[in-house]
Amino acid sequence: MSLIGIDLGGTKVQGVLVDDGQVVADAKLATPTSGVHDVVAAVVGCVARLGGPTSADGIGIGAPGVVEPGTGTLVRAPNLVGFEGRVPLAALLGEALGLPSSTSLVVDNDVNAAVVAEHRLGAGQGSDDVLGVWVGTGVGGGMILDGRLRRGPAGGAGEIGHVGVVVDGGRQCGCGLFGHLESYAGRASMESEARRRHQAGKPTRLVELAGDKRMKSSVFLKAFDVGDEVTLELLDEAVRALGVALASAATLVDLQLVVVGGGLAGKLGPRFVGRIEQAVRSRLFVRTSPLRVVPATLGELAGAVGAALLASGPAGASTALLASGPGA
Amino acid sequence: MSLIGIDLGGTKVQGVLVDDGQVVADAKLATPTSGVHDVVAAVVGCVARLGGPTSADGIGIGAPGVVEPGTGTLVRAPNLVGFEGRVPLAALLGEALGLPSSTSLVVDNDVNAAVVAEHRLGAGQGSDDVLGVWVGTGVGGGMILDGRLRRGPAGGAGEIGHVGVVVDGGRQCGCGLFGHLESYAGRASMESEARRRHQAGKPTRLVELAGDKRMKSSVFLKAFDVGDEVTLELLDEAVRALGVALASAATLVDLQLVVVGGGLAGKLGPRFVGRIEQAVRSRLFVRTSPLRVVPATLGELAGAVGAALLASGPAGASTALLASGPGA
Repeated sequence: MSLIGIDLGGTKVQGVLVDDGQVVADAKLATPTSGVHDVVAAVVGCVARLGGPTSADGIGIGAPGVVEPGTGTLVRAPNLVGFEGRVPLAALLGEALGLPSSTSLVVDNDVNAAVVAEHRLGAGQGSDDVLGVWVGTGVGGGMILDGRLRRGPAGGAGEIGHVGVVVDGGRQCGCGLFGHLESYAGRASMESEARRRHQAGKPTRLVELAGDKRMKSSVFLKAFDVGDEVTLELLDEAVRALGVALASAATLVDLQLVVVGGGLAGKLGPRFVGRIEQAVRSRLFVRTSPLRVVPATLGELAGAVGAALLASGPAGASTALLASGPGA
Repeated sequence: MSLIGIDLGGTKVQGVLVDDGQVVADAKLATPTSGVHDVVAAVVGCVARLGGPTSADGIGIGAPGVVEPGTGTLVRAPNLVGFEGRVPLAALLGEALGLPSSTSLVVDNDVNAAVVAEHRLGAGQGSDDVLGVWVGTGVGGGMILDGRLRRGPAGGAGEIGHVGVVVDGGRQCGCGLFGHLESYAGRASMESEARRRHQAGKPTRLVELAGDKRMKSSVFLKAFDVGDEVTLELLDEAVRALGVALASAATLVDLQLVVVGGGLAGKLGPRFVGRIEQAVRSRLFVRTSPLRVVPATLGELAGAVGAALLASGPAGASTALLASGPGA
């Protein structure tokens, strides 16, 4: 079975062609910032580089927002320019690709796709109850319960970044509300807070290294490695917030495993994930819980590979079909 | 189909006999505080009053603790004297009841049972994604996802009372940890806090009304009705904590409905539930979410009726069998 998976991100469109569970080709384009029409064209271009729509039995798209189940409409995708309102992405792509009726098209949340890949082929193998938390510019999530991706009636399940960690007030989140996990552990929120503290008279290497440019994950790593005080504080706060939110999630849904992925987590490495595990374990209601917190293992292609896996069958059951992993 | 359901609580053992979806008999005993042997005998006595084990096709028990799936062993039941360690409740009851092999015995968490009843016959009818939160001495919970009770690999799913609502510190919870929902919204925690404030020089009607006795839910209602300041503060804090925890749960698992039950919530009535709904809605990540927060409707028998429903078939699928409700 040939499947194309596309990870549609805020900066790049990453595609893979998966054949019998193996990645046999990949392609990458910059994400246009000129609106829906051009983004759709970029996805079509990425599919073309992988052999075109007729080369695959199914095409899966992971998109950075809440995806309405059934329709594949993107309800909220703040990181794509021009996607402020509801965008019927599945319908637009179906038309633009001119798909043959034998080819299925599935649109799902990008982190859902990455977590499906980690569950089937990566760090989550063998665990049926897994939460993936993707710590990057923001904080995304996806959840496998009883071996199946949980979408929820509105398609919003797994959004751990917007779980509250403070009873009143707290830092403002990118979504407009206050005191969410993302406002403490997302790279963009930590950047704002670093600049605020710098300006308030507490100089930090973070601002010196980044200057006026985006404060990349590599900047956080460099400042951490030289023991910059503000960096240590911000990361402590991030770890504590992750501890509260993940322990709460583990208590509420009863989890076996948390997989930590995303750009910032990948850059900070296993010691960051180890600290998150400690923070979670000290807060677990069932103290004998075997819960583990581990790094994602599939790297940058996880989202695209997961999107391909999601296209391998009917949306609800799709994760079962490529269960045997690469080389099967 | 005849089913016996038993709600084994800290103060009473409440039983019902359910015939074709109708409660046809009920029985109540005080819960012994003299250890496991006597509690098991009380459950056997309650079953006897409802016709004995041979009168039913299945017997369901709701118990106030975490129940290990598969074995029916009670892992943690702080409100039953003598149940501090692991108690193999299903095995002990099977032996004490001398069950014929044709009669199934199911042991589950008490709030899980009550939420199954509300989902099938009460406030949760028609919703497939429901969280029940039981606000009483403590704060319990149970969760229906995609129409099925979520138990989780360790049997701990749904424990919303032990979700954190404060990033660091906060009030100590009955479970020993800090900053949990239960430490703000559970009656016992609110009682401790009221007595602390009273002693610290802020007199409250709560302590004047309760004296040295347990500060019952009716005491909270009376003090609220006369506008007692400490009572208003404590209830404000409880509502805010419920807002944070329930909005987080709704975000993480994507819910349609929250059902609020339990002794304190029942006494405070619909205006309390209305305030919780406001507190949740103002904190929802997906602001267009149709989430509703409603009072439980089945009253004190919900736990026993739900336990009977859980006994109607194999544990995982049991809730489907009596789907048509009373009078079916």
